[in-house]
Amino acid sequence: MSKNATLNSDVRIEHDLIGERAVPAEAYYGVQTARAIDNFHISGVPLYHYPELIKANAMVKLAAARANRDCGLLTDEILRGITGACEELIEGKLHHQFPLDVFQGGAGTSTNMNANEVIANRSLEILGHRKGEYEFCDPHNHVNCSQSTNDAYPSALKLAMALANRDLVAEMGGLVADLRAKAAEFRHIIKMGRTQLQDAVPMTLGQEFGAWAASLENEIEALKQMSVLLLTVNMGGTAIGTGLNAPEDYPERCVVHLVQITGMPIRLATNLIEATQDTQPFVIYSAGMKSLAIKLSKICNDLRLLSSGPRCGLHEINLPPMQPGSSIMPGKVNPVIPEVVNQVCFRVIGNDLTVTMAAEAGQLQLNVMEPVIGLAILESIKLFKNAAHTLRHNCVRGITANEERCRLGVEHSIGVVTALNPYLGYDVCTDLAAEALRTNRGIVELVRERGLLTEDQIRDMLNPEKMLGPMRRI
Amino acid sequence: MSKNATLNSDVRIEHDLIGERAVPAEAYYGVQTARAIDNFHISGVPLYHYPELIKANAMVKLAAARANRDCGLLTDEILRGITGACEELIEGKLHHQFPLDVFQGGAGTSTNMNANEVIANRSLEILGHRKGEYEFCDPHNHVNCSQSTNDAYPSALKLAMALANRDLVAEMGGLVADLRAKAAEFRHIIKMGRTQLQDAVPMTLGQEFGAWAASLENEIEALKQMSVLLLTVNMGGTAIGTGLNAPEDYPERCVVHLVQITGMPIRLATNLIEATQDTQPFVIYSAGMKSLAIKLSKICNDLRLLSSGPRCGLHEINLPPMQPGSSIMPGKVNPVIPEVVNQVCFRVIGNDLTVTMAAEAGQLQLNVMEPVIGLAILESIKLFKNAAHTLRHNCVRGITANEERCRLGVEHSIGVVTALNPYLGYDVCTDLAAEALRTNRGIVELVRERGLLTEDQIRDMLNPEKMLGPMRRI
Amino acid sequence: MSKNATLNSDVRIEHDLIGERAVPAEAYYGVQTARAIDNFHISGVPLYHYPELIKANAMVKLAAARANRDCGLLTDEILRGITGACEELIEGKLHHQFPLDVFQGGAGTSTNMNANEVIANRSLEILGHRKGEYEFCDPHNHVNCSQSTNDAYPSALKLAMALANRDLVAEMGGLVADLRAKAAEFRHIIKMGRTQLQDAVPMTLGQEFGAWAASLENEIEALKQMSVLLLTVNMGGTAIGTGLNAPEDYPERCVVHLVQITGMPIRLATNLIEATQDTQPFVIYSAGMKSLAIKLSKICNDLRLLSSGPRCGLHEINLPPMQPGSSIMPGKVNPVIPEVVNQVCFRVIGNDLTVTMAAEAGQLQLNVMEPVIGLAILESIKLFKNAAHTLRHNCVRGITANEERCRLGVEHSIGVVTALNPYLGYDVCTDLAAEALRTNRGIVELVRERGLLTEDQIRDMLNPEKMLGPMRRI
Amino acid sequence: MSKNATLNSDVRIEHDLIGERAVPAEAYYGVQTARAIDNFHISGVPLYHYPELIKANAMVKLAAARANRDCGLLTDEILRGITGACEELIEGKLHHQFPLDVFQGGAGTSTNMNANEVIANRSLEILGHRKGEYEFCDPHNHVNCSQSTNDAYPSALKLAMALANRDLVAEMGGLVADLRAKAAEFRHIIKMGRTQLQDAVPMTLGQEFGAWAASLENEIEALKQMSVLLLTVNMGGTAIGTGLNAPEDYPERCVVHLVQITGMPIRLATNLIEATQDTQPFVIYSAGMKSLAIKLSKICNDLRLLSSGPRCGLHEINLPPMQPGSSIMPGKVNPVIPEVVNQVCFRVIGNDLTVTMAAEAGQLQLNVMEPVIGLAILESIKLFKNAAHTLRHNCVRGITANEERCRLGVEHSIGVVTALNPYLGYDVCTDLAAEALRTNRGIVELVRERGLLTEDQIRDMLNPEKMLGPMRRI
Repeated sequence: MSKNATLNSDVRIEHDLIGERAVPAEAYYGVQTARAIDNFHISGVPLYHYPELIKANAMVKLAAARANRDCGLLTDEILRGITGACEELIEGKLHHQFPLDVFQGGAGTSTNMNANEVIANRSLEILGHRKGEYEFCDPHNHVNCSQSTNDAYPSALKLAMALANRDLVAEMGGLVADLRAKAAEFRHIIKMGRTQLQDAVPMTLGQEFGAWAASLENEIEALKQMSVLLLTVNMGGTAIGTGLNAPEDYPERCVVHLVQITGMPIRLATNLIEATQDTQPFVIYSAGMKSLAIKLSKICNDLRLLSSGPRCGLHEINLPPMQPGSSIMPGKVNPVIPEVVNQVCFRVIGNDLTVTMAAEAGQLQLNVMEPVIGLAILESIKLFKNAAHTLRHNCVRGITANEERCRLGVEHSIGVVTALNPYLGYDVCTDLAAEALRTNRGIVELVRERGLLTEDQIRDMLNPEKMLGPMRRI
Repeated sequence: MSKNATLNSDVRIEHDLIGERAVPAEAYYGVQTARAIDNFHISGVPLYHYPELIKANAMVKLAAARANRDCGLLTDEILRGITGACEELIEGKLHHQFPLDVFQGGAGTSTNMNANEVIANRSLEILGHRKGEYEFCDPHNHVNCSQSTNDAYPSALKLAMALANRDLVAEMGGLVADLRAKAAEFRHIIKMGRTQLQDAVPMTLGQEFGAWAASLENEIEALKQMSVLLLTVNMGGTAIGTGLNAPEDYPERCVVHLVQITGMPIRLATNLIEATQDTQPFVIYSAGMKSLAIKLSKICNDLRLLSSGPRCGLHEINLPPMQPGSSIMPGKVNPVIPEVVNQVCFRVIGNDLTVTMAAEAGQLQLNVMEPVIGLAILESIKLFKNAAHTLRHNCVRGITANEERCRLGVEHSIGVVTALNPYLGYDVCTDLAAEALRTNRGIVELVRERGLLTEDQIRDMLNPEKMLGPMRRI
Repeated sequence: MSKNATLNSDVRIEHDLIGERAVPAEAYYGVQTARAIDNFHISGVPLYHYPELIKANAMVKLAAARANRDCGLLTDEILRGITGACEELIEGKLHHQFPLDVFQGGAGTSTNMNANEVIANRSLEILGHRKGEYEFCDPHNHVNCSQSTNDAYPSALKLAMALANRDLVAEMGGLVADLRAKAAEFRHIIKMGRTQLQDAVPMTLGQEFGAWAASLENEIEALKQMSVLLLTVNMGGTAIGTGLNAPEDYPERCVVHLVQITGMPIRLATNLIEATQDTQPFVIYSAGMKSLAIKLSKICNDLRLLSSGPRCGLHEINLPPMQPGSSIMPGKVNPVIPEVVNQVCFRVIGNDLTVTMAAEAGQLQLNVMEPVIGLAILESIKLFKNAAHTLRHNCVRGITANEERCRLGVEHSIGVVTALNPYLGYDVCTDLAAEALRTNRGIVELVRERGLLTEDQIRDMLNPEKMLGPMRRI
Repeated sequence: MSKNATLNSDVRIEHDLIGERAVPAEAYYGVQTARAIDNFHISGVPLYHYPELIKANAMVKLAAARANRDCGLLTDEILRGITGACEELIEGKLHHQFPLDVFQGGAGTSTNMNANEVIANRSLEILGHRKGEYEFCDPHNHVNCSQSTNDAYPSALKLAMALANRDLVAEMGGLVADLRAKAAEFRHIIKMGRTQLQDAVPMTLGQEFGAWAASLENEIEALKQMSVLLLTVNMGGTAIGTGLNAPEDYPERCVVHLVQITGMPIRLATNLIEATQDTQPFVIYSAGMKSLAIKLSKICNDLRLLSSGPRCGLHEINLPPMQPGSSIMPGKVNPVIPEVVNQVCFRVIGNDLTVTMAAEAGQLQLNVMEPVIGLAILESIKLFKNAAHTLRHNCVRGITANEERCRLGVEHSIGVVTALNPYLGYDVCTDLAAEALRTNRGIVELVRERGLLTEDQIRDMLNPEKMLGPMRRI
């Protein structure tokens, strides 16, 4: 790492293992970031597209600096500089100093060094020095003290996800609330339930929305549980988890500071060697995202099915029209919001496979593929948060029901015959159903014609309200 | 490899690198197969579950033996024995001598040695010797002569797939023919087309079935093209493709015999080192299976949508009832055949991922994961062949149309307004559509009411027959 | 469902919605199973390949029968028959009466009816009647009483998985114990750790095995947590979760019996409509299997890397030779056991995608794709259980270390320079490392040559033992 | 669609089916784009991130306009305006007028309307009118004339991919050339080949690089073949492929113009209904990308294996050092370039799953998920193009060989015993190999000691040069 940076008006010269290299004079990042910028022209998406990632890196660096001071490895002065720099990053400042591509080799070393360099240079300024005067605050010796990329980077990744997950859970909770509100609104609308796309037995539209809400709630619950794994960090493990070059009580001290800085119940891994090579928290949290994608996609499929038509579909509900549906068919309105959510879900499921491949590629003491794991998961969270917001505001809240259509479906259905099973037996009911299907007539009509039940019994047994059963919940 | 097999009534003793081991006296397989049986208790599915695989191995061994004789490495006598043994395997005999688990380590060495051992022992009998008297016909020195697992096994795998693909293509071709027959039968039935599950513009049910047929035909065509890659083999490359221990003109001779034995246009790879480590033919053929799975699943989804109901669904077609649909709802009939085909498709897509993972795991001069690649693909072919047969005979051929329902859909639809675009302009048409939707009235009715067109014009322009357009094809 | 079965010597005639059909006289299954056998010739793998599935079905049917008796819907006599039949199935008897293909349409109706029919006919015999005399014990009215396929089948699937998971966890626990034993055995062997396949800093071979053990333990823990979701059932929901035709207190009673029969903490879902359409428990448990696959595959990759050689690889450990490795290269021994485990992992990951696709395909009140979900997960569990057993007994227990080779690696390594960072500074260390690399010399040698440290310091600071750090755990 | 746009200084008012809406006065896009911008805040990645997509849309619109003029539906004047606008877009101008999110519902309608609106408004300016004066050039009636989103959009998507693929193929071809150059450079370096990570038999390093080159060439060939499918378009099919509202000879005319504009051999689909709902070209081209990902990942894995070390790895080759490898370990250099390429490959494989899910979700006459299909594939192409460039320039070209290390590996190896098979027999060779392994001695030494061969024979038979065999190709 450069100690002697030659400054001129436009650039300063830094050096590292590879040799000397000019860095823009105004840049807070240094030589290693500059090299990585050159090396990785891949996606064109910079690190700062994911602000949580930069904030989380700063939180980790701040916790490490405080622990290092506790252990006597940093002066109060240097800590003051690092603290100031980290706090600015946590507030969202200087993020454009992280222009690195989200795709990068090196197991996150470039991202870690980017953080080390920006924090060092900003510290220098805070402490009254100039950028590049690393003898007063060095990216390696001070900012990265007692750390390796292999503990600082995955810890920051996990923290970034945990931060983003908190927002996602909130937005999904809002979606659940909106679905529940619709469930209450539609609690009186009786319609046919369907299994295997075939008419089954009656239910309410409220029950249908209520089931979606309950189902999404289970996904939120799963995400919460799975995200707990993200809170176990391997700080202090340094290069491979043996803790080489970290003071003995540094790890615990570092975690205490991290808890205080983040307000999250972060814990130290019990086996740092294992934790340094392990990607299970990512794999399982990503699986939780996939599970949510499956559920959300299914709900959107259902919304599109139930609103199909208007004349030649199920048409039990109407989605709010958001835009003209066709460049050729006048008056056509399409379910564009559920459609975009479906697509987000497919992307998230693809991202989960990327995580799977990357996690399986870990070797020996490290998984070098963590950057793409981080990218895939942070992208999925972002997409989901926006998709949920769109689904709530541009679709669910505006849904209306076609009550008459729903009611007629039940009245004309054959499935209500199921309710007569206990009274007439399965065989007689099968006969009734078969005749209804063959003749296109109604069950009530046939029951009357055959004199199988009295009018009172018909009113009682074939009352769809009664078929909603003891389970009537929304 | 065992030269001196001690025989007693129940077992014979063979030996190899690991040491001595008893083999059942009546077994055609030998010590290496016996060890592999012990080592791999995994799935419980034996190699002989896939007869093509055993046949293909025998074809490869026969071609190699003939080429070795051509090169002066085998006597006519030994060739006679090997030929007899291979022909029996090709006829389907002795397949239970391949009881190895389909899951195995060793890059197929166990399967290759199983073939070598069974062929050697059966040859011995044909030549008048007893099993285990390998001095007269040895699994390694004779049956495996000029070969390694690393050329013989992948060549046999590819051949097995090519053989199975031939049957699959035939069965899928039958499915296309059945769909085309239905397309012809339904060519006069006019119905609403749907985009995004919303009513679009008119088409015929025949066009719908015809599109499925054409679409499947494209999949068959792709499978045919992709399976060509399976016909390039690396025979003669031996261990890593350098051809160590194989005579110079052996590879070409071997392929000539393979062409003659299989009747297939098999070719020799141009770079045997590349071909020995490469799994592209498997990856691409498997991708073809995945493409077919996507298409077949989409068609089954459509069949289930169009037959949904009977009262509360689209109900444009009826699938033949194959079994009662419910253990509780009398008279319910479900689309069980498309449903099982959907599930086969999901399995095939899963299998393609298994192939992807396994192919990516290749290292340096070999891909050791070929057995699971072989298993996944052979299973997919088998499932598809049976699924297509079931779909044809238990579903497609018995489909009937609800012509009246289809017709009413068109009559009540709003989408027909599209045809008035060129005459009334997009804006007026948008107004008409919006009013129709709001008031639940018909387009014709509104056109009449507003006096926008004469009766002749209405008859002409709003004739659904005319909307089928110049593209009317089934 | 058939009430009047005509019996002759070879077959009996039963009838259902579709009409009459002969069933083999000795068959315990009935007409609906017979139809499903005809309809689904797909994989050739019968239901009884997964005994847990049949046992779990019997447990569910027994619990339902007891609850029905509690509710006054079944006589003690019929309960006696059903109990006897179910207990036999739970003991593993009559499993060949479930010959249905594991691939089936109908959302499990065929499996459910197979269970209903076998239990009814075996009950009839126990009660002194003949098969087919369903007036005394009817598949629908008695065995399936208060149930639908849509509650009984997914409940049985989940239970089957929970039962199988118990065995899997035990076997994986054994693998962890075996790895820990090796960790203890190798605790004194110092070697180089590697990150990104490049030499990093020293560790012990015991730490390496210990990390694998700890990592697998985390997977077991995750599986345990995820399998809890499998213990929530929707019994009493009947067709779509509204509970139509089930007595009000039946669901809770049924679950009480299920807890008692299985000894597992099974609970009733809070929203039965949601639970009837939901597949989250399958999705998440399958994701747990995928996570285990990723971990196990990584460990096997490591085992293969560390045992590579013998002359041109890392060769730090030796796997026990299980079989000759090559049909052409004498003396070659391959890591066949890790290789087969890798392949199992790829299959499991493929199966997880099958589950994903199938789960996403759920529509409205049901997911009809549950049979392939069940198949994929039960297969994965079976494969893993066998793979873990094989890995323990045919590989891990027999691993030996090449201590000298490990030690030499550390002595010759450059990475030990890391320990001098705090004393000489990062820049001097970088210089030392660069020179060592360039000149192919050792760090100690260069430190001596430059006179940077005294011999005492060298002994102290460059002692690999000290580099294992405060984290030295296995 | 708006005819009367009220203009003020900052905004103009347009209207559509949903009602009136203000659009920024300077915007070339109109009301429908504005609505879509509001509706889809999802990824934050705008359409113009993929310039090929905008260019391809313009090419399609230009071809359609020319065909419409041929059919008498557009005046020369309007064609002049549209031509000017399209040519500007093709030249890369006005791309920021496509700010829509790449994630969108509506099957591409928003992208199509964005193109229609921008082209209409730019045409208006070219023709001397003001933006919004659509009576002179209307997005629907003129720019979209004879088209639907459902033919124009997928045609443009395919064209965009075909354009991007051309660049990708060129870059990959360059990578092949660089690998071949290294193969020539390393043709004389003899080393051990490895199968299953175990020492096998000798080869040259040139052969190893040559195999990678050949293997990548096969992938390029596959991509070329698969991309042919992208050249079949459904122009003229309009809404569902029936061609409603398109003149009879429009489709063929449109394709003739498209061929002329693009210089590509574009063809018209034979069944437009099928082609309108079909996504096979995307599925198969994406599978080609996946195949390339598998291959490229395998090559990068190999590069990382062969360069592992420097002291405790295989260390046969050196990758050029691009940046310091560690924030803690001085002098460590990591294979960062292959690592980032691996990660790109995992992303591409994930993208292929996204395409799979989206393609399977097609329903009836359309696949509404095409936007995410387009995004996934265009992203994969972009990532691959950049990854190949990086791999060539930052890694492959700078690779050097450790010749001595390679040679010593062969000299010490046991695998050379394979060459003695034909002379000494498999059993004797197995004995030799076993003793060499046990005693850590060399094969030559043991052959001499046992007097098995003369010195001349040893020189001849154990000459590694001779083991490269008749297949010696690079």
